[in-house]
Amino acid sequence: MTEGKFRLDERFTMAVNGFTNERLLQYARRVMQRLVNRSGIFLIQPEVKLSPADMPGTMVLSCRRQGKLALNMDESYTLAVTPAGIALQAEGDIGILRGLETFLQLLAADETGYYFPAVVIRDRPRFPWRGLLLDACRHFMPLEVISRTLDGMAMVKMNVFHWHLSENQGFRIESQTFPRLQQIGSDGLYYTQEQVRDVIRYAEMRGIRVVPEFDIPGHSTAWLVAYPELASGPGPYLIERKYGIMDPTFNPALEKTYTFFKSFFAEMSRLFADDFLHIGGDEVNGNEWDANPGIQAFKKKHRLEDNRALQNYFNTRINDILKKNGKKMIGWDEIYAPGLDRQAIIHSWRGREALEKSARDGYRSILSNGFYIDLLQSTAYHYLNDPLPADSQLNVVEQKNILGGEATMWSELVSTETVDSRIWPRTAAIAERLWSPGTVRDVDDMFGRLDNISAGLEEVGLAHVKNREMLLRRLAGSSDAHSLRLLVGVLEPVKEYDRHNSGKPYTFFSPLSRLVDAAIVDPAPAREFEKLLAIFLKNRDADTFKTIMCTFAAWEGNHERLLALVRSAPLVGEITPLSRDLAALGNIGKEAAAYIFNKGKAPDDWLEGAKQAVLAAAKPKIELELRPAKAVLQLLEAVVPVSRQGKEE
Amino acid sequence: MTEGKFRLDERFTMAVNGFTNERLLQYARRVMQRLVNRSGIFLIQPEVKLSPADMPGTMVLSCRRQGKLALNMDESYTLAVTPAGIALQAEGDIGILRGLETFLQLLAADETGYYFPAVVIRDRPRFPWRGLLLDACRHFMPLEVISRTLDGMAMVKMNVFHWHLSENQGFRIESQTFPRLQQIGSDGLYYTQEQVRDVIRYAEMRGIRVVPEFDIPGHSTAWLVAYPELASGPGPYLIERKYGIMDPTFNPALEKTYTFFKSFFAEMSRLFADDFLHIGGDEVNGNEWDANPGIQAFKKKHRLEDNRALQNYFNTRINDILKKNGKKMIGWDEIYAPGLDRQAIIHSWRGREALEKSARDGYRSILSNGFYIDLLQSTAYHYLNDPLPADSQLNVVEQKNILGGEATMWSELVSTETVDSRIWPRTAAIAERLWSPGTVRDVDDMFGRLDNISAGLEEVGLAHVKNREMLLRRLAGSSDAHSLRLLVGVLEPVKEYDRHNSGKPYTFFSPLSRLVDAAIVDPAPAREFEKLLAIFLKNRDADTFKTIMCTFAAWEGNHERLLALVRSAPLVGEITPLSRDLAALGNIGKEAAAYIFNKGKAPDDWLEGAKQAVLAAAKPKIELELRPAKAVLQLLEAVVPVSRQGKEE
Repeated sequence: MTEGKFRLDERFTMAVNGFTNERLLQYARRVMQRLVNRSGIFLIQPEVKLSPADMPGTMVLSCRRQGKLALNMDESYTLAVTPAGIALQAEGDIGILRGLETFLQLLAADETGYYFPAVVIRDRPRFPWRGLLLDACRHFMPLEVISRTLDGMAMVKMNVFHWHLSENQGFRIESQTFPRLQQIGSDGLYYTQEQVRDVIRYAEMRGIRVVPEFDIPGHSTAWLVAYPELASGPGPYLIERKYGIMDPTFNPALEKTYTFFKSFFAEMSRLFADDFLHIGGDEVNGNEWDANPGIQAFKKKHRLEDNRALQNYFNTRINDILKKNGKKMIGWDEIYAPGLDRQAIIHSWRGREALEKSARDGYRSILSNGFYIDLLQSTAYHYLNDPLPADSQLNVVEQKNILGGEATMWSELVSTETVDSRIWPRTAAIAERLWSPGTVRDVDDMFGRLDNISAGLEEVGLAHVKNREMLLRRLAGSSDAHSLRLLVGVLEPVKEYDRHNSGKPYTFFSPLSRLVDAAIVDPAPAREFEKLLAIFLKNRDADTFKTIMCTFAAWEGNHERLLALVRSAPLVGEITPLSRDLAALGNIGKEAAAYIFNKGKAPDDWLEGAKQAVLAAAKPKIELELRPAKAVLQLLEAVVPVSRQGKEE
Repeated sequence: MTEGKFRLDERFTMAVNGFTNERLLQYARRVMQRLVNRSGIFLIQPEVKLSPADMPGTMVLSCRRQGKLALNMDESYTLAVTPAGIALQAEGDIGILRGLETFLQLLAADETGYYFPAVVIRDRPRFPWRGLLLDACRHFMPLEVISRTLDGMAMVKMNVFHWHLSENQGFRIESQTFPRLQQIGSDGLYYTQEQVRDVIRYAEMRGIRVVPEFDIPGHSTAWLVAYPELASGPGPYLIERKYGIMDPTFNPALEKTYTFFKSFFAEMSRLFADDFLHIGGDEVNGNEWDANPGIQAFKKKHRLEDNRALQNYFNTRINDILKKNGKKMIGWDEIYAPGLDRQAIIHSWRGREALEKSARDGYRSILSNGFYIDLLQSTAYHYLNDPLPADSQLNVVEQKNILGGEATMWSELVSTETVDSRIWPRTAAIAERLWSPGTVRDVDDMFGRLDNISAGLEEVGLAHVKNREMLLRRLAGSSDAHSLRLLVGVLEPVKEYDRHNSGKPYTFFSPLSRLVDAAIVDPAPAREFEKLLAIFLKNRDADTFKTIMCTFAAWEGNHERLLALVRSAPLVGEITPLSRDLAALGNIGKEAAAYIFNKGKAPDDWLEGAKQAVLAAAKPKIELELRPAKAVLQLLEAVVPVSRQGKEE
């Protein structure tokens, strides 16, 4: 921070000094438009100029060359804001892109208008691999989802889009060599090659690499629907509608399998520009291999001791094919085996131990364990999940092997309507973990900034906020959604794999439009309540008491309105128990807070009953958790029972 | 309506009987998914079956053949719902598509659950041409806008997407013959041919024709930036950033102009499948023609009396080119001239007189006058705008020449974020005008149904509701947007071309994110207030009095909260006068209503002062109108002044 402010007014303009290219120019134009839309200013010179204007109030962008979009690309930049002007400098144009996002983050407002605080920022990323995996298979993700996701990634300076393109539930990309793959294996839901080229170009214009994943030899039902002759089982196969680990697996004992992949990967290697290609390789259960005498014979002949060795044989053959096509292989933990090519990257879903082991053995690796955003864990949990924590025992050379990490958005339980609220804003916290120094880890501070970032993400079309409101409107039908809104503000969806175990038979066709789909992790009203309660327990002051009593009353009063809504909106009916529990929390909270505030003592049996009721309310129902239950329990702990002896306070 | 209900439960399934194709199947699958998402039901048989299931509770779709996507295509269908099952029948598959939308519209709910009322519907459109024009030039409309617009059109059974692709402000489509058009004339904002093919395919799968418009010889600055040698003026030209009628015009006196269009239209005719191609032809101001001696000489030589004759000469040459490429010409009113090809269609922006004249002369025509949705006129106005009104003097043969109409979404003042709220839900009322009998014209009933349709439109991704909320959030910054929400609920943007005359220098780069952009026509809170006021003036009952007093108090109390918001959100500052006016309306309304309810008399000077204040509040400010001012004036009219003699009531 330095002295003063750069005031934004209609004279503001942006100019490029020195090297320029289409990527830099288009990005700068979009940033100008976002600035204009945020501030409502009618600029006199809205066009990005190609020479440094000598006008005052100019922002000058200067870099020396076009950045190469590849692992270890240069993303560093220096941003200097003074009251007289703004300078953004970088070695490559990609650094300018990153700096422009920081520039927009700095926009602030006071009574006089909009301004940028004077600062000098010298910035570069901690890890070179900062990715987001999007599973376009379990549920297909149309192009507009891809493009807004890429825009969101660019906003938070992520640089790898990991595109999961094949699965048991669908083969999602056009192959011109093997068109049956998409014709038979996709339900018509796939990307054409031209669309893929558009996506790659779109990502490139935002400084983002696109790494495709073709998950083999398991997770491959959709391929085998089209080419059952390459399977390890007898077939025939149907596109899988359910979720979980499935048997269908490519046959590694057949030479024609490799002939197929030779053509297939030659085609895909031409299509995708990045140096890396992901072959998945996870969760091969071996059932089909064990049941196939030909495969058993093949293992014996090649002295492949077990299925792991067999898969390693398969991977080695695939790696050779990729190498011939100029690609380096990435795979999940399971590909890590003796003799693995030194150029391969291990993608760790298993966790720190696996990650560090491969780093010690000289393999590069990226972390996704702890970044599974589809499991709906808290933002704080992801934020503190460091690929290279402070207590790491790796030496400097080994540390270099930890390239970074990837958030993973598996799509069993998300639709086009809900995917944004599962990715954002939590992924911004992961992006910060991977960009900023490991010492930046204040959770409260992160949450404060996260709400700002969340608002910014809406500018590029992300629907993480607005689609939740839409789902509530749809649930409420023609009635007022207010009671639903209050309820969902204190609910969280159950975590990890609990939705799959909740009794609802989730398939590709299931509704993803119930209250659990509108609920998010770390909803703001619940967070605010917890803060308020902590203040109350500390200060026991009249103002906080009054505010907290209002919240409790609102919870209590909401139930009747929800019951009225249920009469015209049958789908809301299943929510009734949660609403009743929230009303109970409100009622108990009110009494407990009053005991505390008035320094009274509560009858022991009331207190015991209240605790039991809150514990019951804390139990997940219809795939949802009532988040304030824990905080209300804390409140009850602070209530003094009549039976307690001695002086209080 | 017949007896009973078809109850929706998890046994519901859909089956195709007889003819099927990819269009029908994909459409039926999407309808099933919308039904599932609306009802939250986990269906046992969610896949659309290819044979008539013998299960109870099946909906059977049957048609005989693939519909040809062309003018006068068969869109009729019969939908029969009984308590035991649902049958949807049509001659062609496009009729099934239309019937499926009706089917979804019928979904209703009661305390027991979701159901379809028993009905028999025999339905077909009144007009064969029911279109929406989208201007992708003044502001570029990315593919996701196009696709969600097409989905919205399909929901309301519209069948022509009129794609305005060239303008002074941009040339928006890739030409492979003349690539400079998009390279120099588009700022990089254009559709590739592959994307255009995707759009055509997307529309075809929804039973929608795509008619491209290339506006010539005027409205053509962006072409002439790339090819100044084809212009009537000396050039050079720059992409236009402002709006209005501009001088740049193709040179109709040069043979190379026709050589150019011969190649150009050959290319575009191959790309676009429809029989029709729109050449615009509107608003040629003739300035460049009058100033060009070569063109003057050409006119003399060819005995072309005036510029109209010259343009007619040009149109005739273009029509010949189109005919050679198998296309029929459409153009705006201006193309109508002696000798015009009988196959041509006149597109009327001028109105009923022009429309009827061409129909009498044996030309087919479509109406857009009265359907200019960008001018922000009331839904009722558009709804009652009949291309063939009950008092039409045309005979039966002439009436057949009126093919229908098109809503026009010109994009000077809309962005990707606001375009949906300018098109929807008002266009649904136009769609009904063009589909349903002319006798269906109850405005109140239309509004009741419109709110339902609006909710349904959100299912296919339309952002007309949710983006308004987003704009308010952005305006409010990190503060609560409640005061803005209340205010915008009673504001309407100014109508016709008044925003251009408001003092703000609108260009391609201007912000479209101010309160006026979040305001819509016919906002629900304003409509509800007017209804309430009418009831109060009629009944003068205590309940309505109480409710209306609450509304007035809310208006009055909102101003202070808005002022607080302004301190942290400077862009909101410009709204202050409107907020002050609304507070004044609230204050005046409260007093007036009390006089009326209490059967008191108001001092004459108070009444006069109040009227002046309301008239002042009724005046547009910062491009917005305070809609309740008129109703409050009505309320004042009902107040009895002290000076009035005689018995009251």
